[in-house]
Amino acid sequence: MADLASIHQLLIRFRDERNWQQFHTLKDLIISLNLESAELLELTQWKSDAMLGQLASDPAFQEKLADECADVLLYLLLIAGEGGIDLLQAAENKIKKNAEKYPVAQSYGSAKKYTELKQLSRKRED
Amino acid sequence: MADLASIHQLLIRFRDERNWQQFHTLKDLIISLNLESAELLELTQWKSDAMLGQLASDPAFQEKLADECADVLLYLLLIAGEGGIDLLQAAENKIKKNAEKYPVAQSYGSAKKYTELKQLSRKRED
Amino acid sequence: MADLASIHQLLIRFRDERNWQQFHTLKDLIISLNLESAELLELTQWKSDAMLGQLASDPAFQEKLADECADVLLYLLLIAGEGGIDLLQAAENKIKKNAEKYPVAQSYGSAKKYTELKQLSRKRED
Amino acid sequence: MADLASIHQLLIRFRDERNWQQFHTLKDLIISLNLESAELLELTQWKSDAMLGQLASDPAFQEKLADECADVLLYLLLIAGEGGIDLLQAAENKIKKNAEKYPVAQSYGSAKKYTELKQLSRKRED
Repeated sequence: MADLASIHQLLIRFRDERNWQQFHTLKDLIISLNLESAELLELTQWKSDAMLGQLASDPAFQEKLADECADVLLYLLLIAGEGGIDLLQAAENKIKKNAEKYPVAQSYGSAKKYTELKQLSRKRED
Repeated sequence: MADLASIHQLLIRFRDERNWQQFHTLKDLIISLNLESAELLELTQWKSDAMLGQLASDPAFQEKLADECADVLLYLLLIAGEGGIDLLQAAENKIKKNAEKYPVAQSYGSAKKYTELKQLSRKRED
Repeated sequence: MADLASIHQLLIRFRDERNWQQFHTLKDLIISLNLESAELLELTQWKSDAMLGQLASDPAFQEKLADECADVLLYLLLIAGEGGIDLLQAAENKIKKNAEKYPVAQSYGSAKKYTELKQLSRKRED
Repeated sequence: MADLASIHQLLIRFRDERNWQQFHTLKDLIISLNLESAELLELTQWKSDAMLGQLASDPAFQEKLADECADVLLYLLLIAGEGGIDLLQAAENKIKKNAEKYPVAQSYGSAKKYTELKQLSRKRED
């Protein structure tokens, strides 16, 4: 069964068989991640939430979505590799930071950004 | 030790404690992924490859890089969740597809896109 | 009254007073354009079309929208300047190209991409 | 000779001949702008500043660059139109705001962001 470390190994082998690490500067990898994120975004262009809800059960759409999500993950693994980052540890740390930035009491059922929450909080304290 | 499934569980708990799933349409999650990708990109703005190479060993830069990578991964997990996608399986499949699109013989040491490789290949066949 | 050429002149003066052209590689200017586009996108995050329709008449939102649109235009002028491109001529040419890619008869009232229109067209010819 | 207002008129005619305004929500127009910005970014992918400098005089590259710049401008005009924004006025205002955020004395020859300039300024005042 696949785990993130074994996917990373497959990816490194794929890269090294093609001698591609020479192109993998942090800047170009991050540019590439942005291009793949944009391809995900393109799947939503001109589509309402209702249309996207229907497409979610369409196999052709699902395959595109899966492929684009995969491309984002693959570049993210390469970026983390070049940057010396443990992706899973970083994600665990970030969930903790977000939990502090968005206390349940203030953010329950609200889509406000934490900077707006702080302003609300200050107003309440006034 | 953290694996992707346990990170996903932490994330879902974080989301549900705040009653945020109601905001998580596929379109807005993908928009959010693009915003986080752009924050990664901002870390490279106005910086040469040489400067970024030096920053890679700077703890403050590393923390920013780790945080932004984490944000991308977290939204990717939410998108995969809403879209019914197994992210690790999708990544494994995509590496296989890429291996077919970029045969070692044609792509070794080359940064050309597969569409350009095809043209090269056609020219060689002429 | 402002026209695009006089805005471009103001912008070049702003840039040269700060001795900033040295940073303006095509790559970093295009990265910057993407960051500004993302700031525009952030204005729509977690907002339905109905909410955005209401915000359109909110002066604070309008000012943010105007500022982010302006940032995109300013980087676009710098990119065109470095790339030796006449932006207005390019736009006029592109409208003509689009008119050929999207013939009225095939694209009236349809949000399909021209690549999909071609497929439709081929099917009809079958 | 083309000016921005006449390009806008051509664009509106193009749109209305195809009955496309119905699709032009602010959110989808801004998504589309981001997709076009990403196509510009793709032109720089895997290319060093030196390579891009050489490409700048290559007619095929110039045409792609011109077309992608044009696409960004066309969506920007549509966004400004839907948002009730005078693009040239907004750009003129933004140059003034930027001149205040980036005083010549502090920002001459520096690529630092204004938030970092403020910190520098505070440190100097200490």
